[in-house]
Amino acid sequence: MDKIQSLTGMLDLYEDGDNTNLSSKIFETERRIKKIFSSYQLNEIRTPALEDTNLFKRSVGDVSDIVNKEIYSFNDRNDKSIALRPEGTASVIRAIIEKKLDQSNHKLWYMGPMWRYERPQKGRYRQFYQAGIEILGYKEGSPEFEMISIICSIIKEFNLKDCFIKINHLGSQENKEAYCKALTDYLAPFKDKLDSKDLERLTRNPLRVLDSKNEETILVLKGAPSIKSFLEPSALQLLEDIKNQFGDICSIEIDHSLVRGLDYYSGFVFEAISSNLGAQDSFLGGGRYDHLCSKLGGKNLPSIGMAIGIERFASLIQDFTLPNKIVSFITLTSNLEPKTYKIAHQLRSINKNVILDTELAEGSLKAKLRRANKNNSDYVIIIGEEELAKGTAVIKPLKDELEEQKIVSIEELFSFYKTI
Amino acid sequence: MDKIQSLTGMLDLYEDGDNTNLSSKIFETERRIKKIFSSYQLNEIRTPALEDTNLFKRSVGDVSDIVNKEIYSFNDRNDKSIALRPEGTASVIRAIIEKKLDQSNHKLWYMGPMWRYERPQKGRYRQFYQAGIEILGYKEGSPEFEMISIICSIIKEFNLKDCFIKINHLGSQENKEAYCKALTDYLAPFKDKLDSKDLERLTRNPLRVLDSKNEETILVLKGAPSIKSFLEPSALQLLEDIKNQFGDICSIEIDHSLVRGLDYYSGFVFEAISSNLGAQDSFLGGGRYDHLCSKLGGKNLPSIGMAIGIERFASLIQDFTLPNKIVSFITLTSNLEPKTYKIAHQLRSINKNVILDTELAEGSLKAKLRRANKNNSDYVIIIGEEELAKGTAVIKPLKDELEEQKIVSIEELFSFYKTI
Repeated sequence: MDKIQSLTGMLDLYEDGDNTNLSSKIFETERRIKKIFSSYQLNEIRTPALEDTNLFKRSVGDVSDIVNKEIYSFNDRNDKSIALRPEGTASVIRAIIEKKLDQSNHKLWYMGPMWRYERPQKGRYRQFYQAGIEILGYKEGSPEFEMISIICSIIKEFNLKDCFIKINHLGSQENKEAYCKALTDYLAPFKDKLDSKDLERLTRNPLRVLDSKNEETILVLKGAPSIKSFLEPSALQLLEDIKNQFGDICSIEIDHSLVRGLDYYSGFVFEAISSNLGAQDSFLGGGRYDHLCSKLGGKNLPSIGMAIGIERFASLIQDFTLPNKIVSFITLTSNLEPKTYKIAHQLRSINKNVILDTELAEGSLKAKLRRANKNNSDYVIIIGEEELAKGTAVIKPLKDELEEQKIVSIEELFSFYKTI
Repeated sequence: MDKIQSLTGMLDLYEDGDNTNLSSKIFETERRIKKIFSSYQLNEIRTPALEDTNLFKRSVGDVSDIVNKEIYSFNDRNDKSIALRPEGTASVIRAIIEKKLDQSNHKLWYMGPMWRYERPQKGRYRQFYQAGIEILGYKEGSPEFEMISIICSIIKEFNLKDCFIKINHLGSQENKEAYCKALTDYLAPFKDKLDSKDLERLTRNPLRVLDSKNEETILVLKGAPSIKSFLEPSALQLLEDIKNQFGDICSIEIDHSLVRGLDYYSGFVFEAISSNLGAQDSFLGGGRYDHLCSKLGGKNLPSIGMAIGIERFASLIQDFTLPNKIVSFITLTSNLEPKTYKIAHQLRSINKNVILDTELAEGSLKAKLRRANKNNSDYVIIIGEEELAKGTAVIKPLKDELEEQKIVSIEELFSFYKTI
């Protein structure tokens, strides 16, 4: 019978006991990031995978690549356009407005799959994972420090090398408009050097031209005005304060050419970059977006957020070992499982921090010991016909060469297991 | 501006510090179930949300309600029928076949959202959550005990009352066929009493008639033959062994009328049921499905699995408290955040088990203490103008009435925080 394949660009992730593979690193990244989020008293929010496509058109911006080309949308049975969410922020704000919580403060995190209908290429998937934070209801000040504090905690937790944080400020609405005008005026005589993509950006959101990967544009931009001269002193002070307070923990660089890919950012913006990703690519980014909530029909809700690309982040982390002890439970008789399996169950209930791998297959002791070693077990417990008849078990240490194998009563086995 | 609503039957889940709400219970259920799965040395597998619709047609069964009415499918840009997965097993087996791992042993778990295009009603969502286990490559015996052991561990972990496990055996392929024939023969004279749904089941998969909710059918079935008389002694022995070994941990009942809703089950089947769900509804179920892998184009892979409905399970659990201590960090000066925020960052880095809630809003001490109490904080740390100038902080205990508020140096604050 012919096989059914997975869809293009959709990966299966799975652990196989080898902590150097990407799936294991993704799962470990998620576990540790969740722990960090919790330690900041952030609350989890989980929105559905599917939303009205209009939500993303109105938030992420009609002009952004996401909505133009990459959104994974379809028409449902009622011919309504439905989208698989391409990012997390718009859905979180939609949820907060819908629950009429857009006048209170929130510190939220989310983690989960996102989808984009991209042309498949290395490191780009149609289903990928993001974790993010949205701090809602607080105006500029402490939330900016909290964001950088969280990023520093994440970088330290994973002991990431060769990475730094870029920060910038896009100014108030007026600053931003004045700068956009200055940038447009500066670029006007160079229109013939810009490609069609940059020309479109120039019309719709001139700041995005600063993101151009086009070499000619990059050259032209060398003489362009900087946003620095359009910013209020308080904005420049914020950047300096953050650099001064956290610069000893992580490398922080003020970069006035940093803008973010999505249209909704305003004020403080940031990215974390690793030279190990090639081309100084970012694995984390975010910023303030005070106007998104009202744009989506809610109240004025000052907001700042960030998102982490889990696959990209996981590719940066070192190999790791899990802290739990592992014990393999081996039975060497086929007709006696009921009684011996019950012993395994009782062991688990007296020490929940130990991982007990009951070897379920029939097979030789040799084959079972091979599996125990492959699983990185600290001990094996062996019960054969003789042990079962006598009410004993064998405890064999696999890692400590000085420790000897011993035969114990089932009672002694329980005492031993309690103290592993 | 008009608001964008969430889609029908798609819930937002979010924590709000109140552990009695369903979202918090869902998240806690997931955390603890993952810990139990890990303690059995099960490995995580995570398949994509989207699959070729044919996968579910061929696995879950063309006749089942899932594929007939409930599958959430759409045509993609190339007019190919794509489905949001309605359950987890078919995707796991598809992944194992695709990776050519269908000749080895696996002990796997998954957890995540599933989708069905159901008519919205109480407790039924179009996006819902399931956790599941698939133990692959092991023939009947120990894996059956492992499944029941895991279920007992879950029931004990959450201290669930008023629940029991139903078990049954559907026999070998031959037993099943012989029983189906006997059941069909028995029902033939009663065809006029069956409704159209049961009549269709009778033609396609007569066992499913045993699942009927139709009162007349239930009456007719009272005289029907039982599968018990078609089973091999070893199958009956397995049921007895499981009941004997685990009956002292959880209530276990052998119920020969138990069949499962999906077509692919064979051999041992089970459900866990709570009288608190009303109408003896199950929150967990599964069984052996030795023929699914070859049906999907893979090798013969003996398999047993189970799935837990997370929302339903979470509705059964008691209120819970998280084990971590919570401290609120309050600053009472608006212009000094940079230095004081850095202290919060340093505190977090010296004791990662404490949750530190930095209060980011401006506001009175009274308002901030209110938030600290609402968050169930154990202590608050207060730094105002005076403390900052003197290099001190106030530590105020909120829960222990005998412990007094004290003023400490920043150094003493760190020592205190380390030992909370």
